[in-house]
Amino acid sequence: MNIRVRLTPDETRARIMTVAEQLFRRIGYAKTAVADIAAELGMSPANIYRFFPSKGAINDAICQRLCGESEAMVEAIVVSDRPAADKIRAAILAIHQYNRTLLSDEKRIHEMVEVAMNESWESIEAHCDRYKSMFARIVAEGAAAGEFDPALDPQMCGKAIFGACAGFFHPTLIAQCERKQDKPDPAAMAEFILRALRKSN
Amino acid sequence: MNIRVRLTPDETRARIMTVAEQLFRRIGYAKTAVADIAAELGMSPANIYRFFPSKGAINDAICQRLCGESEAMVEAIVVSDRPAADKIRAAILAIHQYNRTLLSDEKRIHEMVEVAMNESWESIEAHCDRYKSMFARIVAEGAAAGEFDPALDPQMCGKAIFGACAGFFHPTLIAQCERKQDKPDPAAMAEFILRALRKSN
Repeated sequence: MNIRVRLTPDETRARIMTVAEQLFRRIGYAKTAVADIAAELGMSPANIYRFFPSKGAINDAICQRLCGESEAMVEAIVVSDRPAADKIRAAILAIHQYNRTLLSDEKRIHEMVEVAMNESWESIEAHCDRYKSMFARIVAEGAAAGEFDPALDPQMCGKAIFGACAGFFHPTLIAQCERKQDKPDPAAMAEFILRALRKSN
Repeated sequence: MNIRVRLTPDETRARIMTVAEQLFRRIGYAKTAVADIAAELGMSPANIYRFFPSKGAINDAICQRLCGESEAMVEAIVVSDRPAADKIRAAILAIHQYNRTLLSDEKRIHEMVEVAMNESWESIEAHCDRYKSMFARIVAEGAAAGEFDPALDPQMCGKAIFGACAGFFHPTLIAQCERKQDKPDPAAMAEFILRALRKSN
């Protein structure tokens, strides 16, 4: 027996995203058609298009959700009560772990992320900018507390920290890293970065 | 009138690489067949295979030549007579510039490099290791000269410097960088790295 429940537009959007994500993970992004998502939901494709203009837009929304999830995790580190150096270490490891798990968990996710990076460059760039800002806040806080050099420019440091961790954060580099004999160590990079943030003579 | 000149095996290898590189640049790696290279040289494909077991092996040899060229450029900086900090700055900018010019010059080159990265991971990793060693040598020299912290582990620093510059050295990230509003600045990264290398309190 089918029970039809009336969903709000937001709930319908969320349902479409959930089902699309399952299909993208199972079949792959390229091989999933909007018609497949519609069939799975018992909706018409035209109805899907009322909520999302394209398959790419659905993927985008899913990736935004993943980005939001990882940003919330780093935000929790930023506002936590511990020395700024520990926050830098924890944030670097958390982003690396999140992205690594996301990608290694399911090869399909890699495909979704790559599509998002190619098709929705601006939203990915905004996501990266939010990470840079969070690192900048930690640096400003550490500088104010006398833990880091007060002469530092927090914005520039936020960019430098994020840039220096590209090998640990970027999906393509994480995937390549798995093949390396001599794997780069995010904890060692965190210590190297902390050296740059502390007061120099 | 065709003049047949007898070439040594090394000269023949070099001729094959030169002609193959021209075709890869003009037609693209994927669309060039060993038969095309053979035709251009007036050789039989079987003759090509006496020198290279596959198209991938030719591409590999070309990429090795490019790697050798850029390594020689960095080696010249390492052995030059100037402060270690200047060498770090110069080496970072030189590798970035070399890779950027190589890739932006010709989109086709990007394809060749990506193929080499996928198919000949070990030789690319050895190339990266040589860069790391060169950075380590500069750090050791700077530490011995009192310019950098004598407590530094040069090998670890070499890896950290190379890792921190992934965004400026890696072909995929260089290509993505071109699309960014807020382009990362290799000179700013060099200064950030130098902060980490100098003596701390």
